[in-house]
Amino acid sequence: MDQFVAPIAKLIEEFSKLPGVGRKTAQRLAFHVLDMKNEEVIEFAKAVVNAKKYTKYCSVCGNLTDNDPCSVCTDVSRDKSVICVVEDSRDIMAMERTREFKGLYHVLHGSISPMEGIGPEDINIKELMKRLDNNVKEVILATNPTIEGEATAIYISRLVKPMGIKVTRIAHGIPIGGDIEYTDEVTLLKALEGRREI
Amino acid sequence: MDQFVAPIAKLIEEFSKLPGVGRKTAQRLAFHVLDMKNEEVIEFAKAVVNAKKYTKYCSVCGNLTDNDPCSVCTDVSRDKSVICVVEDSRDIMAMERTREFKGLYHVLHGSISPMEGIGPEDINIKELMKRLDNNVKEVILATNPTIEGEATAIYISRLVKPMGIKVTRIAHGIPIGGDIEYTDEVTLLKALEGRREI
Repeated sequence: MDQFVAPIAKLIEEFSKLPGVGRKTAQRLAFHVLDMKNEEVIEFAKAVVNAKKYTKYCSVCGNLTDNDPCSVCTDVSRDKSVICVVEDSRDIMAMERTREFKGLYHVLHGSISPMEGIGPEDINIKELMKRLDNNVKEVILATNPTIEGEATAIYISRLVKPMGIKVTRIAHGIPIGGDIEYTDEVTLLKALEGRREI
Repeated sequence: MDQFVAPIAKLIEEFSKLPGVGRKTAQRLAFHVLDMKNEEVIEFAKAVVNAKKYTKYCSVCGNLTDNDPCSVCTDVSRDKSVICVVEDSRDIMAMERTREFKGLYHVLHGSISPMEGIGPEDINIKELMKRLDNNVKEVILATNPTIEGEATAIYISRLVKPMGIKVTRIAHGIPIGGDIEYTDEVTLLKALEGRREI
């Protein structure tokens, strides 16, 4: 009895596989499950299985969805002339929260990273190129401001620009509520470069 | 599309019910589940259900177990003359890690707390009293050093002492690796009171 009984040990092991969950947290979560009502436990387990089972990637834009094509791609009110390219489905949620962007999306599912052996053919760039017909007037590159994200943005812009489509990159600068004193020099440089007349 | 699709939203909701898991962490965990392989997801969900399904409380000591009575109660090598009383099954794991205590346990599943309306009849004290036959020579009270834990220890000692059974309380003092300078005065007082000749 210097170990947890098998079913608990197994649950602790499973919880500790989750990101940011260490051994102690996994134990706490496992014991919480034991304290839950039977129906609650079943519902929790069902939610885990169903999330995996009933979500897929939209065949058009690559967004996570329960219906293919996704609700953005099928929304007739959205502007089909603008495609915003993001690295991850979660980025779409962030963009949507601005309630400003009304175009379509394209999810790359990653970024070009030679260090990790991820080349242009490993992410959804080919699918993006297929979508660029005469209706598309602008491609907004909203990849992350990291080395990989920048490299991906430059790579895509070189493919798309020759097609006569406008390519833009989201602005980098000091975040709202940020403090110039504590802003790193690269961000500050980007903020200076991106300055606009008022 | 300003909300997650239903199966993901449901999983996020379920994760955020867990202790110490906020909205953002729940999202991260949910997306991790989506990134897991199908078999891994099934295994995770199974572990959740099985932990709840196959663990019960030992009918003798109240410990969490998959077999009733638990492995401690059925272990013939253990000293049946000493019972260590703890508040929670997890406390047993902590005690076992010392590899020193070889007696039996009794889990109260709580502590007396008038503030929360928990009286002596709401925790496993009656079951403890039933176990106290002529074989039991000592009851070690290892409830937490909180107001509720202390009150519970005093309550139990008053019941057990008249039966001619030795009642002891685990020592309070400065933890190993602790610093006297930063030790709170109550702990320091307990450490002084509990001083021993060397």
